[in-house]
Amino acid sequence: MLKRYLLAPGPTPVPPEVLLSMAMPIIHHRSPDFLPVLDSAKKGLQWLFQTKNDVLILASTGTGGMVGAVNNFFNPGEKALVINGGKFGERWTKICQAYGLKVEEIVVEWGYSIKPDMVEAALKKDPEIKAVFVQATETSTGVYHDIEGLGKVIKNYPDTLFVVDAISALVAQDIRTDEWGIDIMVGGSQKGLMLPPGLAFVSVSEKAWKKNETSKMPRFYFNFKKERENLAKNQTNFTSAVTLIIGLNEAMKILQKEGLENVFKRHARLANATREAVKALGLGIYSKESPSNSVTAIEMPDGIDGQLVYKTLREKYGITGAGGQDRAKGKIFRLAHLGYADTFDIITGIAALEMVLKQLGHPVKLGTGVAKAQELLMA
Amino acid sequence: MLKRYLLAPGPTPVPPEVLLSMAMPIIHHRSPDFLPVLDSAKKGLQWLFQTKNDVLILASTGTGGMVGAVNNFFNPGEKALVINGGKFGERWTKICQAYGLKVEEIVVEWGYSIKPDMVEAALKKDPEIKAVFVQATETSTGVYHDIEGLGKVIKNYPDTLFVVDAISALVAQDIRTDEWGIDIMVGGSQKGLMLPPGLAFVSVSEKAWKKNETSKMPRFYFNFKKERENLAKNQTNFTSAVTLIIGLNEAMKILQKEGLENVFKRHARLANATREAVKALGLGIYSKESPSNSVTAIEMPDGIDGQLVYKTLREKYGITGAGGQDRAKGKIFRLAHLGYADTFDIITGIAALEMVLKQLGHPVKLGTGVAKAQELLMA
Repeated sequence: MLKRYLLAPGPTPVPPEVLLSMAMPIIHHRSPDFLPVLDSAKKGLQWLFQTKNDVLILASTGTGGMVGAVNNFFNPGEKALVINGGKFGERWTKICQAYGLKVEEIVVEWGYSIKPDMVEAALKKDPEIKAVFVQATETSTGVYHDIEGLGKVIKNYPDTLFVVDAISALVAQDIRTDEWGIDIMVGGSQKGLMLPPGLAFVSVSEKAWKKNETSKMPRFYFNFKKERENLAKNQTNFTSAVTLIIGLNEAMKILQKEGLENVFKRHARLANATREAVKALGLGIYSKESPSNSVTAIEMPDGIDGQLVYKTLREKYGITGAGGQDRAKGKIFRLAHLGYADTFDIITGIAALEMVLKQLGHPVKLGTGVAKAQELLMA
Repeated sequence: MLKRYLLAPGPTPVPPEVLLSMAMPIIHHRSPDFLPVLDSAKKGLQWLFQTKNDVLILASTGTGGMVGAVNNFFNPGEKALVINGGKFGERWTKICQAYGLKVEEIVVEWGYSIKPDMVEAALKKDPEIKAVFVQATETSTGVYHDIEGLGKVIKNYPDTLFVVDAISALVAQDIRTDEWGIDIMVGGSQKGLMLPPGLAFVSVSEKAWKKNETSKMPRFYFNFKKERENLAKNQTNFTSAVTLIIGLNEAMKILQKEGLENVFKRHARLANATREAVKALGLGIYSKESPSNSVTAIEMPDGIDGQLVYKTLREKYGITGAGGQDRAKGKIFRLAHLGYADTFDIITGIAALEMVLKQLGHPVKLGTGVAKAQELLMA
């Protein structure tokens, strides 16, 4: 028997009570049974997003929400500013380009975070920019971008929307949609929300709804205006992913019982302990600035292949973390502390990492990282 | 305690073993754990679709598959022939128009089925038609269209694709993708496949893949070429809806054990018993031609509101069927016999219908319809 542990930055583990709630018999999405379910889900999401805006619920992965955030609000030829600091920043560019937007990128070195004044300079220089696209947490590098700082800049530009991919940041970071002026924010189910993949969430501000009226792009499945009209009636435009939405309410109960502030504190604490444990092992953190509370990207020592670390952890210890992507492939290994995560997930991840590094020939004093994590997580 | 029964044409009940399989801990979609899961799912779908074509697996409802069937293969201004015989025929038109296709409709009276020679005449008249869009089962009217007959016509037109929405027909009807020359066929999880909503399936022929190369429409989430490349590696382009795909394999085991021929026979038998029971009660079948094996649309007697029947069945007896849509609203009530359905689902549905009609003042001799169903289902 090899017991299994999921420590990847999505999908993340789903709590047993959530899994069981989704094993209940199916209810019909157009029946009165479902109306209070969706009503509860939408209120829960508003709480989590810290917003009074509608938060749309889509049957798709988070990427579907990102596509909708582009093709419901803009027109071909309009200018978009994309902050590209990793694999998911690239995705914003690809989506915008797929729909004919003119993309200007601010390329941020992998492992670093955007400086809001660079965005300010770009917006000043080109008043035609209709939107700024960014990740809250760039999963590929483990960096959290300064969403609050960006919001302060962008809110001075009444014709520019602020669009945030918070898919892997949601729940792990305190992101204040309304207070910080985020016009469109995208979340996904299989990350901090502790659900299986299959749902995207998108909050839309009044400023964005106004821009929506001018957008003529073809759309049908991701039609946000129709989703909004349906949401007002506690429905979705097409068949609702009923089991996932039932699971969402169950997961939300867990988060609401803990309280939003405590949820963020837990993630900050686990992330900090992970980073300090990694440093105690003599390894570097790949995020040179603003490391995220969702996932820690760990630099591999010379001669150690991050992909082999990933593979060995899985095969020998049953632990699924994540390797690096593209230019970071082989150079890093990523451990998530996202969603249904607590002290002993960190202890497990660090202990196993020590064991694998030692097995692969890297000099490690077993227990060094673990002891640091213990110390910090006892406090 | 009010015991609940789901007899709607989607979502349909999910067997307990499938629900439990989806309550297992999450596995990672890019890990080696998942590769055999997706491999098994894709082979199962090929078996069910009766095809050697790729069957793509998308995280969306069936409508997402329909959108992909339009925006991966055509260009704005190209001509489409839509067979519109109900609510879902209308949906093909709306999707095609949303993406700028020129739509010619063959409007079929609700409750009737398309005559393939009408399509032949339309194709002869206009050689510019790039595709024929149709429902296999038009859920709103309970009619099954003659897909085999249409296939025979369309295969003589090498530049015309045959696109079938089989979302509610799949599993209930013997549809032979390859033998009948279906180029693109769309299925969904929450119908005959006995799964929760959240997955779409699309089979794509080589003829369609060739046409795909000429299509320049913007697309990102539903990018079939990328899905095909990923499928070859037992992956999906974006995060896989892992729980639903695990459930799919479990549901497929049930269907494969029964055998495809027996699955179709069971649906035909249940559908026939339902129709005969309805007639024994003195009620009419709304489908005047080619009634489907998925759902029976029952005409309500004068003075009986189908919506009230729906409501009373739910509130008094815990049974969720379906009312009529649009012009059929109030005039019909629909009972499905789709997916996880057997003899006593029919008995339950018919018995409850008798009780409700009597309660609403229609003269019914209790047990008349039930006896007819019993007689037919004993044989």
